[in-house]
Amino acid sequence: MNAEKDVSIYDLKLPEELKLLSFSQCENLCTQIRNILIETVSKTGGHLASNLGTVELAVAIHRVFDSPRDKIIWDVGHQAYAHKILTGRLERFATLRQENGISGFPRPDESEHDAFISGHSSNSISAAFGIARGMKLQGKNNHTIAVIGDGAFTGGMAYEGLNNAGKSDDNIIIILNHNDMSISKNVGALAKYLSEIRAKPGYLDTKYAIENILDKTPLIGKPLKKAIKTSKSVLKGMLYHSTMFEDFGFVYLGPVDGHNIAEIEKTLITAKRLKRPVFVHVNTVKGKGFEPAEKNPGAFHGISKNDMTDGNPEIISDDSFSAVFGHELNRLAGQDGRICAITAAMKYATGLNYFYAEHKDRFFDVGIAEQHAVTFAAGLSKTGMIPVFAVYSSFLQRSYDQVLHDAAIDNSHIVLAIDRAGIVGEDGETHQGIFDAAFLSTIPNVTLFSPSCYEELKMCLNEAVFDLPGIVGVRYPKGNDLSEFDKSNLNTFYTHENSKSDILLVTYGRIYNELLKAQKFLSDEGIFCDMLKMVKIFPVEEEIIEILKNYKNIFFFEEGIRAGGIAEHIASRLVDADFSGRMHISAINGFVKQASVSSALDNVGLSASKMTSFVIRELKNGEKT
Amino acid sequence: MNAEKDVSIYDLKLPEELKLLSFSQCENLCTQIRNILIETVSKTGGHLASNLGTVELAVAIHRVFDSPRDKIIWDVGHQAYAHKILTGRLERFATLRQENGISGFPRPDESEHDAFISGHSSNSISAAFGIARGMKLQGKNNHTIAVIGDGAFTGGMAYEGLNNAGKSDDNIIIILNHNDMSISKNVGALAKYLSEIRAKPGYLDTKYAIENILDKTPLIGKPLKKAIKTSKSVLKGMLYHSTMFEDFGFVYLGPVDGHNIAEIEKTLITAKRLKRPVFVHVNTVKGKGFEPAEKNPGAFHGISKNDMTDGNPEIISDDSFSAVFGHELNRLAGQDGRICAITAAMKYATGLNYFYAEHKDRFFDVGIAEQHAVTFAAGLSKTGMIPVFAVYSSFLQRSYDQVLHDAAIDNSHIVLAIDRAGIVGEDGETHQGIFDAAFLSTIPNVTLFSPSCYEELKMCLNEAVFDLPGIVGVRYPKGNDLSEFDKSNLNTFYTHENSKSDILLVTYGRIYNELLKAQKFLSDEGIFCDMLKMVKIFPVEEEIIEILKNYKNIFFFEEGIRAGGIAEHIASRLVDADFSGRMHISAINGFVKQASVSSALDNVGLSASKMTSFVIRELKNGEKT
Repeated sequence: MNAEKDVSIYDLKLPEELKLLSFSQCENLCTQIRNILIETVSKTGGHLASNLGTVELAVAIHRVFDSPRDKIIWDVGHQAYAHKILTGRLERFATLRQENGISGFPRPDESEHDAFISGHSSNSISAAFGIARGMKLQGKNNHTIAVIGDGAFTGGMAYEGLNNAGKSDDNIIIILNHNDMSISKNVGALAKYLSEIRAKPGYLDTKYAIENILDKTPLIGKPLKKAIKTSKSVLKGMLYHSTMFEDFGFVYLGPVDGHNIAEIEKTLITAKRLKRPVFVHVNTVKGKGFEPAEKNPGAFHGISKNDMTDGNPEIISDDSFSAVFGHELNRLAGQDGRICAITAAMKYATGLNYFYAEHKDRFFDVGIAEQHAVTFAAGLSKTGMIPVFAVYSSFLQRSYDQVLHDAAIDNSHIVLAIDRAGIVGEDGETHQGIFDAAFLSTIPNVTLFSPSCYEELKMCLNEAVFDLPGIVGVRYPKGNDLSEFDKSNLNTFYTHENSKSDILLVTYGRIYNELLKAQKFLSDEGIFCDMLKMVKIFPVEEEIIEILKNYKNIFFFEEGIRAGGIAEHIASRLVDADFSGRMHISAINGFVKQASVSSALDNVGLSASKMTSFVIRELKNGEKT
Repeated sequence: MNAEKDVSIYDLKLPEELKLLSFSQCENLCTQIRNILIETVSKTGGHLASNLGTVELAVAIHRVFDSPRDKIIWDVGHQAYAHKILTGRLERFATLRQENGISGFPRPDESEHDAFISGHSSNSISAAFGIARGMKLQGKNNHTIAVIGDGAFTGGMAYEGLNNAGKSDDNIIIILNHNDMSISKNVGALAKYLSEIRAKPGYLDTKYAIENILDKTPLIGKPLKKAIKTSKSVLKGMLYHSTMFEDFGFVYLGPVDGHNIAEIEKTLITAKRLKRPVFVHVNTVKGKGFEPAEKNPGAFHGISKNDMTDGNPEIISDDSFSAVFGHELNRLAGQDGRICAITAAMKYATGLNYFYAEHKDRFFDVGIAEQHAVTFAAGLSKTGMIPVFAVYSSFLQRSYDQVLHDAAIDNSHIVLAIDRAGIVGEDGETHQGIFDAAFLSTIPNVTLFSPSCYEELKMCLNEAVFDLPGIVGVRYPKGNDLSEFDKSNLNTFYTHENSKSDILLVTYGRIYNELLKAQKFLSDEGIFCDMLKMVKIFPVEEEIIEILKNYKNIFFFEEGIRAGGIAEHIASRLVDADFSGRMHISAINGFVKQASVSSALDNVGLSASKMTSFVIRELKNGEKT
């Protein structure tokens, strides 16, 4: 291989041959990777800005370390595309985020180079320490590297990891990928603190510089230096203490220019040699190398296909449940000064930017800190405010204990605006919003609504904010309202279409629209079904049970996990009621793989055609018995 | 009131008249409070050492601040007894932790002086910030004070709170109650760091001392001081930076002797005047004033009635599910070097002290960090180790997302030893272990066992560790094995006692023993019932459904929340099966108040007599329809 000549990425055996390249060849390789990223993500959607920011870092890590013997963990995982390209997934990279394609996040079942599953934030240090200690207990001497963004550092779990890993003497390297730009602009005291460090010259250099100054100081310089170095005085601690990461037991190296491969490598080699917990601070630029993304990284954080044509994609369209929620909450906040809005680093994606624009004093971006968000809301509620926490269903999983312990026992009134409820599509297993109805309904003092269209969402939100006590969740899906049904007679409880059939189709949320199609298909087959759409899904009111009792065959379709879901709650009532029919449940029975929303719904049996077949099949089975 | 004369606590109007006392009267009052604490806890059980440590602190807080206008939040809450005595609950203090008595934890529904609910750890800063900001938004100028122990600081949520509160300019005071002694000996890098600060002289004094030194330094002292004060140099940051709490935006005051009321007061008055986020570091001695507790605070952390007679109570008896688990896991670890044990600051209470004694290298106390514990376990599992996380059911709620996202999606093999499952008694709502079966069974790749006696616990643990993939939970209750049934034919699946009745009683776990009594009572009434004891409770195998289908009346008793519980999973299968009978569910429908375990079980309908009545009543109702 000629060290002077650029090499095509397609001609390299990766990641091994990375180590043979010169720095200038590496730089050229990074350009090639960036072109692949831009080209692919413009077709498949995905995270662009964060991945453009970690190209040199990924190259440097794979040059210094030996994956998969050394273990690399990418926190959150939406910055691991270059890592994927470098570890055997170049040829398949065009299938990113598509059904049966490669995942947008690290997945151990996809590659031995993905050391731990990613998707949710702030868990990488804990996972890395577990892996490092496991290897050590087995007498292995390999390194474990966790790459974690400054956004993920706002999640408390990162500190639990630091506190445990820092006291060890394991080969564990935490790389802070500091791009000063979590999904929304980073917030909190830590962001300010990190930015201050970021602005400093290299820390180790500074230490030496101070000693140098003291060396040159007449009369007291040398004795002072000696005193500082040898005494256990407070002054020593102050002078030699620099970062909180050292308080947690790490050697701190940095900050390093995250787009200078030589500089990163030099630092990683030092970290590797230390063979103990090291914290490497790397400064990167989100969107690096693609001007529109560099200028507006927030807009390019998570993007859909075809969003990149004009270089200025909107994160959410006004035609989306998120925007409808955001506008409506903003409107309500204009009428009532008690309403507060909380987001965990998702101001734009949840539509809370409208609220923020008009009611800054009552808007709170708490960082990626879903636990704090709920307990903070409960605190606000104790003073008579009405907090609304807008959060993705999947990320609300982090708040289970806080909803239960900090809010529900004391019956505090807080509203959970649960976005991305149900299947989310291309992000796959780690992001599906299919558990919220089940885990929230285990908690006393919780009411849940699942509107099926924009108008119902607004009605439910009003009721949640003003009319109900305790914890009220309003859950709504990703994307826009595809419903085609008549909206003239909506309410927040239920709608029962009763044509005196002995077959009833029941559902809630967005798939009501699909079920209406199924009802039509079935009637075409001569099977006429009544219909029940639930809007308030929990607690299940007796009125619902009274209706259901009269049917011979009930089909319940649920876009959520079956175990603990609404269908099961209802079933347990029917089995103890004067009900002689059968209830057939079609819900989700495991993790749901990546695919478009419509394809994933079909895969789990919740498309109109699959629901139709389910009804026909179950009715036939019933005839046999 | 005579400032020279000691005053009986019973003659004071509290908390108002606290402010009229001299320091020496306060000291005498503290002695009176300690005597009340020792006398009461020796009768009622509860947390002694932690409460003995905060007597002066509680007095000082109530002298400096005006509760309930100022809001006081006690993290975890097991150090708030003096606060309770000082705020209107002196007369009722003897009812501590008893049914219909006052709670062992702060409860807003008990007193307006309890600003936020406590029980689980590390949430106080988030709650305090919510309350502070809510008051501020309403134009109120009151103070909010959170008292949090160094143990609670190992929970990541505390950092989420610091990160958000620290950047504000709200009247919020965080008091670190540093007794260097969480439930087990405190662990992690932070503990070391805090101990270093603790050993320093008062920090503000030091700052002044340095400036003083520089003033007196010839030639360069004054210019250096000036340069430090005015420049934005790195040196300034180093010299004026001392604690990580300042990195988080707080003014740091301390450390203060937490048993010197005058000193605490002086510091709190400073903190109050600052009207911005302040962090006060208070050193206390756990068990202060009661020699046996001072010498052995771990043993006096959470104690039962009558434990104090010889001054050396055991935390867990060998006759307990916890100890049986601890011994058995220790035995297994001796046979298999892959087994690791993890606790979240509960080494003794979970029985892991036996494991620790023999296998230190594979034992991990991670602090009060249940999130980290699970993800760390998943990391260990990726390397082929077999991690067992022993945790109270109630505290496992913190790990819901980690079990689901970090372990279950990738189907990592980890064992959850779920202690204090079911009703726990006197600790009340915040500590009941009634949700685990429901929330864990929403997660794919989870298997759950609920043994009903020691022998079954050991059998289930073996199967969980060695034979099953994925996440395996083994849940067992607080206390000892009261079962009286024949143990000659145990297994880990189910036991069906089939006498061809058309009535079946079903349950799992410890209340099987009660249900056997009910079966006897019913047979005395001429009602003969078959019996099914489940040991593997989830997933529900088809074999169970096949048995149940044949009965006309099934009675399912579940010591757990009904919504999402095992009974509902079964009901949803029966309602879609060839089952023409009825299934009657008796489970828990809300939060369970404090009472002895047996009384609480009776209150929720799960004593032998209540179960008997339930069966009789439901059968009669069935006859009518």
